Amino acid sequence: MIDLNRRGLVMAAGGVLAAGAVGMPAWANPERKLGYAVVGLGGYGLGRIIPQFKECQHSRLVALVSGDPAKAKKVAAEHGVPERGIYNYQNFDSIRDNPDIDIVYICLPVFMHAEYTIRAAQAGKHVMCEKPMAISVAECEQMIAACRKAGKKLMLGYRSRFEPHNVEAIRLARSGAIGKLRYFRSEHGFTARDPNTWRMKKAQSGGGSLMDIGIYALQAARYMTGEEPVAVFAKETTDRSDPRFREVEDMIDFQLEFPSGVIGSCMSMYSANRNQFVLMGDKGRIELEPATAYSGQRMWVGGERSDKTLVTPPPGPYANQWVGQLDHMAQCVKDNRETIVPGEEGLRDIRIIEAVYRSAREQKRIVLRG
Amino acid sequence: MIDLNRRGLVMAAGGVLAAGAVGMPAWANPERKLGYAVVGLGGYGLGRIIPQFKECQHSRLVALVSGDPAKAKKVAAEHGVPERGIYNYQNFDSIRDNPDIDIVYICLPVFMHAEYTIRAAQAGKHVMCEKPMAISVAECEQMIAACRKAGKKLMLGYRSRFEPHNVEAIRLARSGAIGKLRYFRSEHGFTARDPNTWRMKKAQSGGGSLMDIGIYALQAARYMTGEEPVAVFAKETTDRSDPRFREVEDMIDFQLEFPSGVIGSCMSMYSANRNQFVLMGDKGRIELEPATAYSGQRMWVGGERSDKTLVTPPPGPYANQWVGQLDHMAQCVKDNRETIVPGEEGLRDIRIIEAVYRSAREQKRIVLRG
Repeated sequence: MIDLNRRGLVMAAGGVLAAGAVGMPAWANPERKLGYAVVGLGGYGLGRIIPQFKECQHSRLVALVSGDPAKAKKVAAEHGVPERGIYNYQNFDSIRDNPDIDIVYICLPVFMHAEYTIRAAQAGKHVMCEKPMAISVAECEQMIAACRKAGKKLMLGYRSRFEPHNVEAIRLARSGAIGKLRYFRSEHGFTARDPNTWRMKKAQSGGGSLMDIGIYALQAARYMTGEEPVAVFAKETTDRSDPRFREVEDMIDFQLEFPSGVIGSCMSMYSANRNQFVLMGDKGRIELEPATAYSGQRMWVGGERSDKTLVTPPPGPYANQWVGQLDHMAQCVKDNRETIVPGEEGLRDIRIIEAVYRSAREQKRIVLRG
Repeated sequence: MIDLNRRGLVMAAGGVLAAGAVGMPAWANPERKLGYAVVGLGGYGLGRIIPQFKECQHSRLVALVSGDPAKAKKVAAEHGVPERGIYNYQNFDSIRDNPDIDIVYICLPVFMHAEYTIRAAQAGKHVMCEKPMAISVAECEQMIAACRKAGKKLMLGYRSRFEPHNVEAIRLARSGAIGKLRYFRSEHGFTARDPNTWRMKKAQSGGGSLMDIGIYALQAARYMTGEEPVAVFAKETTDRSDPRFREVEDMIDFQLEFPSGVIGSCMSMYSANRNQFVLMGDKGRIELEPATAYSGQRMWVGGERSDKTLVTPPPGPYANQWVGQLDHMAQCVKDNRETIVPGEEGLRDIRIIEAVYRSAREQKRIVLRG
């Protein structure tokens, strides 16, 4: 006997489901592209995410959520989204009645992540949420609980995990190519220009450069070392007379202590462009610059500065990092396996970020508890 | 009336001393090269300092102090040092009777700096002392007191202060070329290979990579910002099973807080070669790599990574950084003015280094007291 329902697929002993079998739920058909609803037509959702679907093997755009009906209609027409796939923030919850939507991608200002993740899960949809996950650990925990309760996946939009240079750098680090790991350093920043963006309003962003761009350094410190920090120390410096920085930090320098003795040293800023990391082992180093940019990554591997080699990684299975992120989620939903960047991964970063802010505020080393 | 004595030059109102005037002490003759005694014929004294005198305008080598009579005799012969200029550690104090010697250059293991600086001052000689100044703040203070009591100058061998790229970088930073200063980062290290050198014995070196090579990062943080740190935080990581690191640290990462809000972030190590610094302002950055090496300095100045320009500094008045250091001291003695790197400057570094070590040991931020 085969029991099929919306929450999961239970296969009878010895039973094999053919693709497209009668009675199979749509998402379980390996040939079918899963449908995404993109929530938020700001610069990232509209400019970076929506254009990727045409390259995807497992994902397609089926719905849009926007507060601007004219904009939504225009974008829908341009990207082949049917009229029934256009939603606004009032009727958002009716996505539950749209079987085309498998996954909701939250591209909203940070303070809206928790609400829309929870509402999407309650509407019976899987959720991809942009980073940073939320403005607090408490919100992250609520998001994870809501998705778990609904039996839905929650994945974070950490695109660099699907970028071939980063993927290859992780593989090299784990393979022992640079020996025993010793030190990680990353600087991430960009020049923020608009003092009026939600990013500069603490209630909406949760914080400044660290939440926005420094989180790439933190993420990379964790995925490059493969370790979780046990303590942090941080120092912030911000010109509070600058209209951009009335509420959020500009520069913050933080140190991560890893259990093996590896030191992570990171710098985040809103006042200059910087995007690089170096992982040092006792037999060499891996250097990426830019490391987590939208494109143009370059990687050097070698013993010393003078004899390092520019390395071109294998291309990887996806057209680009966004396609990888979108299709990985779709594949994990189809295969009913966990993504490589589930909600817990986003929570870990926010937990560390809260400790970094506390360290800077209290001017002391903060021990992190597992 | 003109009063000339060995302790100083007092010029009567309206009086002008002609070069080589009868009755003028030898050191006051602007045409005369001042005589150096080099103490210690190890790699640095013999390999780096002694060869410089042939390029000097104000300095000459007149004496050697060594525990190896055969070596001393050979080196003396090669460099035109007369027989009467050869000393050992037993008869060192008799340098007081050698009028050729104006300045004693201490190129000894760190634990011997205090003793020989004090004995040289007591013998009536000015002192150039290699960095780090001594193994403790207490020793540094004794050295300064001894030189002050003897009325003799004490200068530290911070050669980078005479290296044209560093000199130009300081000038640019002070000129506002990169705007308001925000952040300084430096990594300094080299691969230490010999577990049996005095550098690896804490009683002789005073510490590990920080005392030896990380001090360049610390010095640069201070001279590039023009500020004194008010607090430090540090984390050390050392593989104590490595025979090189039984007594001294390998890697230490430390953060300096400057009063203006500039953050200094430094890393020191004995396990890889690294020699660079970056000073960031709100309008650009100055980058040197290598920054404080024996040669090959390169400097970039610019707004962002992509539009920075390789800058060749003006050549400066000296043949190289060591010649600058030696001749600056000689000129300051002749002119009876303070050097740009007096004993107090060496003491400041050792005071900060002690706080860095204490921070790493106690795992807390250490406030520095002026």
